[in-house]
Amino acid sequence: MAIVRVGFLELWVRDLERSLEFYQGLLGFRLEHREGKSAYLRGYEELEWSLKLTEAPFPAVAALGFKVDEEGLDQARTWAQQEGLPHRLEADWGRPEVLRVQDPFGYPLAFYFRAEKLPRVLQNYHEYRGPGILRIDHLNLFSPEVDRATRFYQEVFGFRLTEYTEDEEGRLWASWLHRKGNVHDVAFTNGEGPRLHHFAYWLPDPLAILKAADILAGAMRTDEIERGPGRHGISNAMFLYLRDPDGHRIELYTSDYLTVDPDHPPVRWSLDDPRRQTLWGHRTPKSWFLEGSLLLDLEGKPVPTRASALQGLPEHVT
Amino acid sequence: MAIVRVGFLELWVRDLERSLEFYQGLLGFRLEHREGKSAYLRGYEELEWSLKLTEAPFPAVAALGFKVDEEGLDQARTWAQQEGLPHRLEADWGRPEVLRVQDPFGYPLAFYFRAEKLPRVLQNYHEYRGPGILRIDHLNLFSPEVDRATRFYQEVFGFRLTEYTEDEEGRLWASWLHRKGNVHDVAFTNGEGPRLHHFAYWLPDPLAILKAADILAGAMRTDEIERGPGRHGISNAMFLYLRDPDGHRIELYTSDYLTVDPDHPPVRWSLDDPRRQTLWGHRTPKSWFLEGSLLLDLEGKPVPTRASALQGLPEHVT
Amino acid sequence: MAIVRVGFLELWVRDLERSLEFYQGLLGFRLEHREGKSAYLRGYEELEWSLKLTEAPFPAVAALGFKVDEEGLDQARTWAQQEGLPHRLEADWGRPEVLRVQDPFGYPLAFYFRAEKLPRVLQNYHEYRGPGILRIDHLNLFSPEVDRATRFYQEVFGFRLTEYTEDEEGRLWASWLHRKGNVHDVAFTNGEGPRLHHFAYWLPDPLAILKAADILAGAMRTDEIERGPGRHGISNAMFLYLRDPDGHRIELYTSDYLTVDPDHPPVRWSLDDPRRQTLWGHRTPKSWFLEGSLLLDLEGKPVPTRASALQGLPEHVT
Amino acid sequence: MAIVRVGFLELWVRDLERSLEFYQGLLGFRLEHREGKSAYLRGYEELEWSLKLTEAPFPAVAALGFKVDEEGLDQARTWAQQEGLPHRLEADWGRPEVLRVQDPFGYPLAFYFRAEKLPRVLQNYHEYRGPGILRIDHLNLFSPEVDRATRFYQEVFGFRLTEYTEDEEGRLWASWLHRKGNVHDVAFTNGEGPRLHHFAYWLPDPLAILKAADILAGAMRTDEIERGPGRHGISNAMFLYLRDPDGHRIELYTSDYLTVDPDHPPVRWSLDDPRRQTLWGHRTPKSWFLEGSLLLDLEGKPVPTRASALQGLPEHVT
Repeated sequence: MAIVRVGFLELWVRDLERSLEFYQGLLGFRLEHREGKSAYLRGYEELEWSLKLTEAPFPAVAALGFKVDEEGLDQARTWAQQEGLPHRLEADWGRPEVLRVQDPFGYPLAFYFRAEKLPRVLQNYHEYRGPGILRIDHLNLFSPEVDRATRFYQEVFGFRLTEYTEDEEGRLWASWLHRKGNVHDVAFTNGEGPRLHHFAYWLPDPLAILKAADILAGAMRTDEIERGPGRHGISNAMFLYLRDPDGHRIELYTSDYLTVDPDHPPVRWSLDDPRRQTLWGHRTPKSWFLEGSLLLDLEGKPVPTRASALQGLPEHVT
Repeated sequence: MAIVRVGFLELWVRDLERSLEFYQGLLGFRLEHREGKSAYLRGYEELEWSLKLTEAPFPAVAALGFKVDEEGLDQARTWAQQEGLPHRLEADWGRPEVLRVQDPFGYPLAFYFRAEKLPRVLQNYHEYRGPGILRIDHLNLFSPEVDRATRFYQEVFGFRLTEYTEDEEGRLWASWLHRKGNVHDVAFTNGEGPRLHHFAYWLPDPLAILKAADILAGAMRTDEIERGPGRHGISNAMFLYLRDPDGHRIELYTSDYLTVDPDHPPVRWSLDDPRRQTLWGHRTPKSWFLEGSLLLDLEGKPVPTRASALQGLPEHVT
Repeated sequence: MAIVRVGFLELWVRDLERSLEFYQGLLGFRLEHREGKSAYLRGYEELEWSLKLTEAPFPAVAALGFKVDEEGLDQARTWAQQEGLPHRLEADWGRPEVLRVQDPFGYPLAFYFRAEKLPRVLQNYHEYRGPGILRIDHLNLFSPEVDRATRFYQEVFGFRLTEYTEDEEGRLWASWLHRKGNVHDVAFTNGEGPRLHHFAYWLPDPLAILKAADILAGAMRTDEIERGPGRHGISNAMFLYLRDPDGHRIELYTSDYLTVDPDHPPVRWSLDDPRRQTLWGHRTPKSWFLEGSLLLDLEGKPVPTRASALQGLPEHVT
Repeated sequence: MAIVRVGFLELWVRDLERSLEFYQGLLGFRLEHREGKSAYLRGYEELEWSLKLTEAPFPAVAALGFKVDEEGLDQARTWAQQEGLPHRLEADWGRPEVLRVQDPFGYPLAFYFRAEKLPRVLQNYHEYRGPGILRIDHLNLFSPEVDRATRFYQEVFGFRLTEYTEDEEGRLWASWLHRKGNVHDVAFTNGEGPRLHHFAYWLPDPLAILKAADILAGAMRTDEIERGPGRHGISNAMFLYLRDPDGHRIELYTSDYLTVDPDHPPVRWSLDDPRRQTLWGHRTPKSWFLEGSLLLDLEGKPVPTRASALQGLPEHVT
């Protein structure tokens, strides 16, 4: 099944206005549409919306969306039927066909190809607000079985491994998997799961990452800066992790590298390498290893989670 | 007489709303006050307003403002009286005492010390708009007698020379003079004068200069980009020259150097050095050498101009 | 035939030491190997060499290299045989199998899959020199028949169109075609051809583009800066065009956008749109439309060129 | 006594080659001269050397240098004589007259005016190495009596206060004092003293700060990154603190603000304001509050230190 790239995320938030104040007001996402209790946003480079916020009684993740190619939707349906997975075809704003499937690990996937194109605003620089959110880059998923999930996403969806973290016994603690040609569309991180660890948007350059931190600080919201700015060892990207008003974790991300070669060799990191999490050796806050967002099944109920057999935190934690 | 730094500029504009749309809307200046036909603006670092726009029948420059120290205002008055120069003490918004003096060359100077401080917004990064205008940096003045004006501003006002352009016969074509410790508060440029060549604001970094060009382009206003972005040979600063809706020329400027040493040696440039105007060798548009803003005398009448005895353009002109 | 991305360029240069002083000394390319009269270089992100310089009696382009997937080499050979195109399988340093084919337009293509991987130096920031050359990005080819070449590269090689320039009569003056998921791996530009217009390397961010211009200026080599720094309308990338000691044109390039969606809509530009060449409205030097590098056939003889039926320059030329 | 600006620092280091590998090799300082066991370095903007490293049995600070104006040297000598302070006139490389005075607090000051100017290399961008060290910016001094030292430096040397940290009882924990027109030439920090807390160099822009961190990480020397990159609340500057091979702390610093106005109002910070140390709310490592460099008296013996009566760390410490 040919997944093209990560395509969107649907989040449940408790107070839509408060969330819009964060995503649109502070971070400068473009609000393209509101309908019922939902709002649809995008970055300045995108021609399709990529973030849907829906007001709901508790925070959760309703869908992890992937753009597929023209045949991908039928392939996905066939697969879901063969595997006996819960699935449902829906329409959403600007997307006539979205196939929602709960995968064997419990992740609420959503596949789509057709999408109405929004007007191109990449070069409407006079309209930019905030640090300059460009496009969705990846989803990072907590999993209690990173090795199995990684193999599955490679074999079934054609994801390709770019980097991974192993301990000395060869156990896989995290993996980075791509389709679109940079470091990842999806990553799996060891921990209680299935949950969403974070989702990430691409920014134009490292100064934009600093600007995002300045904007949060200017608004007296430093509590929402969880980690960074810094440069990852893994992925080489500059990053900043924020927690939105519901605790959902968003990463602002830029400057990783090209991975399109079929023989591109994955990079192995040792679990306790101090340059892995942050190339500069910074310690990572404990919350980063423990907290994540609940997922919803296709009925809108929280997907049960379980702890991982791999316990323990890396050494470089504050 | 102890001038501290360039302090403000008052421009006559033909359509105040249109000018505010440019300065506030596109460039992100903070509008602090409106009164009668005037608007008062500042950059994000400034504690005092630095740009006053006044709607008037024709575009012109009403005042070139300089902050002086506590004794400076009396010294300036004494000097104006001794020299028999037209002068007048006025109050303006937030500035109870502004001494306006037309200097012997015709430049409409305005000296002030006392100023109501506006709230500090330097770190209100969530409120920044546009490329991030920080503070007024300098005024560049057309003069038909650069050598005389330069000597006068050094001797009477204590300006110090940092860079200058000479031809092979040792004639002075341009000079850069400072009080505040960077390359200039005032520069004189050979040409029909007295006129204002341009005024400049400091931006946070070279990316902000590029962002300003992007903003103008995004708004489909590339015609208002006259020159740059580029790096000056002279001053080493990154620059962008824009023409406002009345043709007044504003420079966005950053990254020159420190000049506070009393024995700081001025840098000499040869008139035809291709790296002088733009370190990268770019040619300069002809308009840059010819066009400027009229000055007003203390009665609000245009100051007559005369041509310079030094004729001819540098080689690197398009 | 599945081309993965542009992979390398082989240039003939008249003085290898002088060229290394430019590419390695000024621009900071990594020199990985020398053999006979050839030198092999790469950017800091690359795991394979991407620029081969060979000392020769006259400047020319010996090969336009493309990485293919594992089956690609056989497919290319079959194609070349079926079409009766001149072709030859060679070995080069670190590349045991390179299939060289002269395509029907005369472009000297070279296909390869297998490549010895060089050590990863992306994060060896202490070894970076120059502006930070990261990876080869694209080749831009002069063609007297842009429409035909564009269709051929789409149909035979699977390139996908991202942007194009048309005149009012619907004639195609230039096209941008990609495989790797950004704006282009190959572009065709109307003009005397077949010739190489330029080749481009990716830099980390727009400040690196400015730094490159500063480095050339610092070394008193502004004559080698042909155009920029600026932002393209087409591709949205920041650019700088340099001419190497043999006149070969290299572009330093960064910050275009993602194009992996199968339904990504190409952007159309009108030939006389002033924002097309440079978003900021800058004029383009005439040399940019006229000068290029000769190509070599598989025997090392210059490929004859012919003029284009489409004559005339865009309006925005100096 | 008219101090112009901070001028230089002389450090004792245990292994000169190792220190040069750090300052010149990694950070890109220009080595201008070696003589005996000393090396003289400068930043790319400076016309005078600003860092002297002298090989010695233990790490220490031999001199805190200040540029004065032409009369300053005589004024300083008169003052030292009147106050009965240890003092001595010396010559150093390129500086025929350096007056060394141990001030009443024990700080080993050195005053000079005359200096041989080194060639201007600001625009020799092809020679830049490392992140682009431009010029010395300030010295930060540990003091057990910040209030007394602050008053003394204001009254005797004419320093002007720009920012300060107070606790709720109005006790002064830290002060920032300038002469050259930005946030500081000298700062006093509460703690065991007199000692040097750190010295700082100005970099061209925030990306250069990130580049410095990358360079240390690339060289596998993350242990030498003590704090940052980040943005200070105080001073608004972007910073990175490194520890050199002897534990001396160097700050890379950029983007503070202009303070030349005589009526510039100092900014007050509350001791436990989380945005004070780092605008983004980052915690500060404990070492930052405790560790510093010993000072030498004019005989080259360590100046005894004493603890401060103000005990306790701010809340935001890791």
